[in-house]
Amino acid sequence: MAKHSANAFTGAKCYGFCTRAGGLLLSEHKYCPDCGAALERRVVAGETRNHWRCTGCGELDYAYPMIVVTCFVAHEDRLLWVQRGIQPRLGAWAIPGGFMESGETLAQAAARELHEESGILLPPEQLQLYMTGTITFINQVYIGFRARVDTDFCDPGTESLDCGFFSQEDCPWDQVAYPEVNDSVLQAYADLETGRFDVWQAEMTEGRYDFWSVAER
Amino acid sequence: MAKHSANAFTGAKCYGFCTRAGGLLLSEHKYCPDCGAALERRVVAGETRNHWRCTGCGELDYAYPMIVVTCFVAHEDRLLWVQRGIQPRLGAWAIPGGFMESGETLAQAAARELHEESGILLPPEQLQLYMTGTITFINQVYIGFRARVDTDFCDPGTESLDCGFFSQEDCPWDQVAYPEVNDSVLQAYADLETGRFDVWQAEMTEGRYDFWSVAER
Repeated sequence: MAKHSANAFTGAKCYGFCTRAGGLLLSEHKYCPDCGAALERRVVAGETRNHWRCTGCGELDYAYPMIVVTCFVAHEDRLLWVQRGIQPRLGAWAIPGGFMESGETLAQAAARELHEESGILLPPEQLQLYMTGTITFINQVYIGFRARVDTDFCDPGTESLDCGFFSQEDCPWDQVAYPEVNDSVLQAYADLETGRFDVWQAEMTEGRYDFWSVAER
Repeated sequence: MAKHSANAFTGAKCYGFCTRAGGLLLSEHKYCPDCGAALERRVVAGETRNHWRCTGCGELDYAYPMIVVTCFVAHEDRLLWVQRGIQPRLGAWAIPGGFMESGETLAQAAARELHEESGILLPPEQLQLYMTGTITFINQVYIGFRARVDTDFCDPGTESLDCGFFSQEDCPWDQVAYPEVNDSVLQAYADLETGRFDVWQAEMTEGRYDFWSVAER
């Protein structure tokens, strides 16, 4: 059923995606973001899992996943890569992407990250939904888009050291920032070759990695 | 390009999805969830938008969207609806769904909500990706899945007052909890009739509503 599957996945815990220096995730909230009082664990009526509740104002606090949007931009058979100009993984290469923020749509977030990291400005409606995925142990959901451009001109701006379009053969595989998600990049190169683009799904947990297309299942 | 589009969308601001009584969203964090000190606005190097920074420990705090997962479960030409047994919209009917939590994949979250609200237990891998969407003004991302079941047996459990499978003609349209997303439900009924299921995308902002399939664009 799954195109790629691996047991006992042994990737690094944080992947460098975490925004906080110590890799602290949303699930580790200790204080209420509304009033600053301490949170306590409790069982909420109707649900048997533990949630957090503020000991001050009584508001409930849940641990939500964060959303990372990525942008697979192709010029002919080459994909856009950016060399990270900020931590984490400064100097390593990645597909453009970053954290979705408030007040933007998924496609707007992906277009913003593309623009910030490569200078390339695309209308969000030109971005096609391409991949969705979860990495459970870092509490992140991935939404990937794809687009084509007519020229390979790009500008690294302030967030990237460099950027450019690379064929599968020429891209800097030994300097990639997140080799754990290389499968999705290889899939994008394969789809560029066939010209057939399905929507792909990925799940990465402590012990399992699955990657499959919506059409397959 | 868009299948449905409307200007000057005038839906209710909160949709009842907000977890906090006052409709307070993640973007309104006032205190650091790590140390409880006050947050201050600041411009982060390399990005011109405002972010928050803790005046105590110095950690950065962003406003992230929350993810709502939903589950369109069909028995023949009927879809599963649940009558909400908890606030908000207690007593109104909805497609099963709820907030994704930490440590689960998108499909696991959808399967959990389905089980909590209807008693129906499906393996997450039987859920097919069906819809993605953003409602920017409440800072929420929607990921919808679809599945088929062989029997229409369900049990409302503790979170629902009732549940059942309804045809498009028979379902309680005058008692739906979130009429703003009726389009997606009507699309699901239409797809059940044709037997052809694409992946759908939706964007709802203050002034715009678009709904289209990946294949269309």
